[in-house]
Amino acid sequence: MFSGAQVSLYPMTDDFVSVILGALRALDPYRDRFRIETDDLSTLVVGPPDELYPAMRDLFVAAARTGVHTVLHATVSRGCPGEPDAEICEVPDGYTMLADRGERIEAALAAAAAAPRLGQTVAAQFSYYPLSAAERHMHEIYDAIDFLKGSGTFSRAKNFCTALEGDAGPVFATLSEAFLRFSPPEAHVAIDLTVSANSPSRRA
Amino acid sequence: MFSGAQVSLYPMTDDFVSVILGALRALDPYRDRFRIETDDLSTLVVGPPDELYPAMRDLFVAAARTGVHTVLHATVSRGCPGEPDAEICEVPDGYTMLADRGERIEAALAAAAAAPRLGQTVAAQFSYYPLSAAERHMHEIYDAIDFLKGSGTFSRAKNFCTALEGDAGPVFATLSEAFLRFSPPEAHVAIDLTVSANSPSRRA
Repeated sequence: MFSGAQVSLYPMTDDFVSVILGALRALDPYRDRFRIETDDLSTLVVGPPDELYPAMRDLFVAAARTGVHTVLHATVSRGCPGEPDAEICEVPDGYTMLADRGERIEAALAAAAAAPRLGQTVAAQFSYYPLSAAERHMHEIYDAIDFLKGSGTFSRAKNFCTALEGDAGPVFATLSEAFLRFSPPEAHVAIDLTVSANSPSRRA
Repeated sequence: MFSGAQVSLYPMTDDFVSVILGALRALDPYRDRFRIETDDLSTLVVGPPDELYPAMRDLFVAAARTGVHTVLHATVSRGCPGEPDAEICEVPDGYTMLADRGERIEAALAAAAAAPRLGQTVAAQFSYYPLSAAERHMHEIYDAIDFLKGSGTFSRAKNFCTALEGDAGPVFATLSEAFLRFSPPEAHVAIDLTVSANSPSRRA
């Protein structure tokens, strides 16, 4: 499946350029497996779907550790029709979509629970769009929400999105499971993701 | 139709709180027609679908006029199932969806061309998600792209999104037309929108 994201970092400081350039070094361990291209609006990251959220996590945590109020936004996609370049986007072995709804939620919960803790608290909100699911699209969303509510990182439902909070490790693992585990492997799925740290409005 | 957005402003300055609070005053003329609620991640704006992009435009231009590199992100939605509160979200008279594809594109082009110029250059990128359109979803996207290419604000196609640039007036008008004019009135449509000004990477 073609998988990737347009990712942006917004450090709320006069010194935003150096925070961004410093954080981008956190992507170095991923560069041999990803296509990475930056323009004035975002950085395109295309590669293995199971490494996409770990890469964004490492990028964001590197910026957040400066202590600056920083936000990451990502437009994430898998299975977008008309996109070439799929050989770097292989799904890992064992990551087959489980047909049974209960098993699927159990597998996602186990993966989220096994995530490493990184000592960086974050707040996130995201919208999940199963684009090719037709009338079924709200069912896919409700299944994903059932998983989110049990994930340990669920914060609250908001209009148009779901809010998560907690350590960056489990939060990004939960997002990754929502991205990969729900909707069939061939489906076109998009996520609109915002992650924040060090906000003065709320110490998250 | 239920319509609204989760909107965030990211001014890249140590003084981000005062830039945000100052810009929020630009929403005052809209407050009697919108429900507006702010938390640590975003501001919810729910109200008339045809005033949503003008409200976001005025908010963003107020922040951009400070000269600070500022980004607005919005998760915009219409027709989301299960959302109440539709009486403040009425579609204006005359804004019926035109059945003919050519007429629809013509009407959108005319509206974008008539937009006021505001003297603030912006760069934008957005993804358009017609959620209830089933197999038709890529056709709705291609129609909207045909309009965008003729709008005078089209910049380039990117992976997962389309980039626009130009004066804030026509750019936000183009976005509003893409939001309202394509997909049927009862459809569930979402947009993932990023707008940037005063970027040091590119003077936009």
